[in-house]
Amino acid sequence: MTIAVDAMGGDHGPRAIVEGTVAAARELGVRPMLVGSGTQIQEELRRLRATTLPIEVVEAPEVIEMHEHPAMALRRKPGASIVVATEQVRRGRAAAVVSAGHTGAAMGAAHLILGRVSGIDRPAIAAVLPTATGTPVVLLDVGANVDCRPHHLLQFALMGNVYAREVLGISAPRVGLVSNGEEETKGNDVTIRAAGLLRDAPVRFIGNVEGRDVLLGAADVAVCDGFVGNVILKFGEGMALALREIVRAEMRGWRGRLLLVYLAPALGVARRVWKRLDYREYGGAPLLGINGVCVVAHGRSGARAIRNAIRVAAEATDHDLPGRIGEAVGETIAVASPGLGASR
Amino acid sequence: MTIAVDAMGGDHGPRAIVEGTVAAARELGVRPMLVGSGTQIQEELRRLRATTLPIEVVEAPEVIEMHEHPAMALRRKPGASIVVATEQVRRGRAAAVVSAGHTGAAMGAAHLILGRVSGIDRPAIAAVLPTATGTPVVLLDVGANVDCRPHHLLQFALMGNVYAREVLGISAPRVGLVSNGEEETKGNDVTIRAAGLLRDAPVRFIGNVEGRDVLLGAADVAVCDGFVGNVILKFGEGMALALREIVRAEMRGWRGRLLLVYLAPALGVARRVWKRLDYREYGGAPLLGINGVCVVAHGRSGARAIRNAIRVAAEATDHDLPGRIGEAVGETIAVASPGLGASR
Repeated sequence: MTIAVDAMGGDHGPRAIVEGTVAAARELGVRPMLVGSGTQIQEELRRLRATTLPIEVVEAPEVIEMHEHPAMALRRKPGASIVVATEQVRRGRAAAVVSAGHTGAAMGAAHLILGRVSGIDRPAIAAVLPTATGTPVVLLDVGANVDCRPHHLLQFALMGNVYAREVLGISAPRVGLVSNGEEETKGNDVTIRAAGLLRDAPVRFIGNVEGRDVLLGAADVAVCDGFVGNVILKFGEGMALALREIVRAEMRGWRGRLLLVYLAPALGVARRVWKRLDYREYGGAPLLGINGVCVVAHGRSGARAIRNAIRVAAEATDHDLPGRIGEAVGETIAVASPGLGASR
Repeated sequence: MTIAVDAMGGDHGPRAIVEGTVAAARELGVRPMLVGSGTQIQEELRRLRATTLPIEVVEAPEVIEMHEHPAMALRRKPGASIVVATEQVRRGRAAAVVSAGHTGAAMGAAHLILGRVSGIDRPAIAAVLPTATGTPVVLLDVGANVDCRPHHLLQFALMGNVYAREVLGISAPRVGLVSNGEEETKGNDVTIRAAGLLRDAPVRFIGNVEGRDVLLGAADVAVCDGFVGNVILKFGEGMALALREIVRAEMRGWRGRLLLVYLAPALGVARRVWKRLDYREYGGAPLLGINGVCVVAHGRSGARAIRNAIRVAAEATDHDLPGRIGEAVGETIAVASPGLGASR
């Protein structure tokens, strides 16, 4: 199985990406294809003594930078690494694409080059987060779908359900709708109407879940629009950072310094825990609803995160995620009451 | 200054509430009025040797329980402690009301009995959260205003601005709009239109703030609708709980047990930090836009949290919060372009 990896996306250039890709080639039995500046990639491969591994290098002369407007950048840079990497999937030369670059550009390239699964109006980005129970939760959308209608949330639920079942191996995923209270009467206009659609959908719908339930593992799939998904994930990120600052402030003074000596071993644990809560470090976020497998990783990704993102891409390919999503949407349209279908 | 305290709200009955009220009477120079079951209140006062303090006890024969529907409960229980306590404010017998009971019922009672400030369509609940910088942030709405229009968000901003300036003493509060990106183009339909209104409003509008910026102190006032506010606050609460579980899981095994010995002093710090992040423990959440001062505290509030909520109520009364909010809304309507005003 060949996985195309955008070697140039990522905040620190190709170093960590090539390193993670080499680890994937050695440990996961996949055949990666590195897309980007051949000179830089070969240099990293030499450094890692990995030139004899079965890793193909595909030249791409341009890079989309983090600050660029995705749609404009995609038009202006047809030779961008993310475009060339996604093209490999369309041409059947790779089974999946992984990028730690500009998420909007990766999403845009996937949308334009590979297209949507039939019946899906809006592809979504899923964050796979660890929970207190040990089983991860699929939170979606955490992408750019800000103004959603009820049937969009229904489609997110169907896609998240397929991902949890096929890739995470949860046999009957519990699907919850993120809301401001568990009661049926709680929610905004869109979520209340989405709950109505979900009650009739072929998923194990458990009703509303509150914000606090998401990381406590009350649902296997937690559905929200991209505005809410983005804000809560980033709130969590800011909370981790703020906790660290507040702990530091508490550590000042001699009593604090004394405490710090005791705390040193705990800080290692805390760092690991916070890392586990960063969905992009944790293994990449799959783009669902695209006619092909695409996984985005955090721009700051280290080698391990890249390796994990490649693993996620390989698993999604193994389970033919786009095909399964297409089937799930097709079934839902077939059983649903008229007018509830895919598009409007 | 007399502050009416609903002695019966709260998960653990009147014990912690009476204790916090006694602390407020002793330390803050306010004259509390305890509303609820006279027998139970007197018993607690005797236990605390506080029967000689200037604390008036007002009998209320009923209690609204946490699971009750607020509007229905208010209609069925005219003798409920929250109703009787709020009545004291309307009749001028108390300057403010504090409750650790059903938030919806407290909001409903305030709305029905005291009414809204002229020009405010929807009162909001503000959470005053500690940030990494040490200066708190006012996040609103965290209440029940789920489907908001742009002018509602404008009103929340005006109210939060008055609170930050008058009660927190921040001379020119930075007002931010919670969104899925800092750029002007980011946001959903409602927040993008609200940003337009905020740019013309007499506040120091700093544009969009992302979820991660809220607790990092990027703004003094962070504005969102009640759906988003509820979900992100509860997500943070769940994250704190999940972190604790994950740390516990990491602690298993002999290496973990060894770590735990080192960690014991750190747990005290962690508990303090997590407590500081719970807005209701932190000092109660003011209801803004009500014709009177109302502060809600967490149902789990201990004595210290109740004392702090009474302090917040006293400060808000000192600064005539409802009057200042009325002025701010009046000015905004006066300077705003036609049609941008209070109601439609």
